[in-house]
Amino acid sequence: MTDNKLCPKVESAFKLFSKKWTGLIIHVLSEGPKRFSDISATIPNLSDRMLTKRFKELEENGIIDRKVYPETPVRIEYKLTEKGKALKPVMKAMETWAEEWM
Amino acid sequence: MTDNKLCPKVESAFKLFSKKWTGLIIHVLSEGPKRFSDISATIPNLSDRMLTKRFKELEENGIIDRKVYPETPVRIEYKLTEKGKALKPVMKAMETWAEEWM
Repeated sequence: MTDNKLCPKVESAFKLFSKKWTGLIIHVLSEGPKRFSDISATIPNLSDRMLTKRFKELEENGIIDRKVYPETPVRIEYKLTEKGKALKPVMKAMETWAEEWM
Repeated sequence: MTDNKLCPKVESAFKLFSKKWTGLIIHVLSEGPKRFSDISATIPNLSDRMLTKRFKELEENGIIDRKVYPETPVRIEYKLTEKGKALKPVMKAMETWAEEWM
């Protein structure tokens, strides 16, 4: 921050992460690629509609990739991109804080 | 995370930070104590009503303190508690990520 002016990059990063569920979804994907059902089973109270919406936003922002495996039945996996993996220090710092203070 | 179960502490920490504006408010307060008007002037589009609401939540969660200076006119400052300051690594990691990827 310079003379009370927010850096636009930092401002838009915080806006992305101030969407409900986004942080938790990235936290779960930091463990490795997951299927839709894995994530919705791991995060309580997260509806499929909302998870679909957040996935779309995260894909549009280049944070996750969606990979389709042409098997029978088709298998679809979601994983962090390099940009997404670069968030691991944020996730780690949050976990460390939560362990001590929550 | 153990066998796809979210740690409750981590889950509640991410829930706290997935509230709109919360991350940005803590980011601004990481610079030091601020008056209400300083913060609302620094964060565009953040209404006074919403800032009041987030301040109340952050106070209830022990992340910020509100200090009243009995001057004329009265001066009120908001600052991070020790619990709040312990979030600086999260803020720093987010800034570093934003600088590179946003």
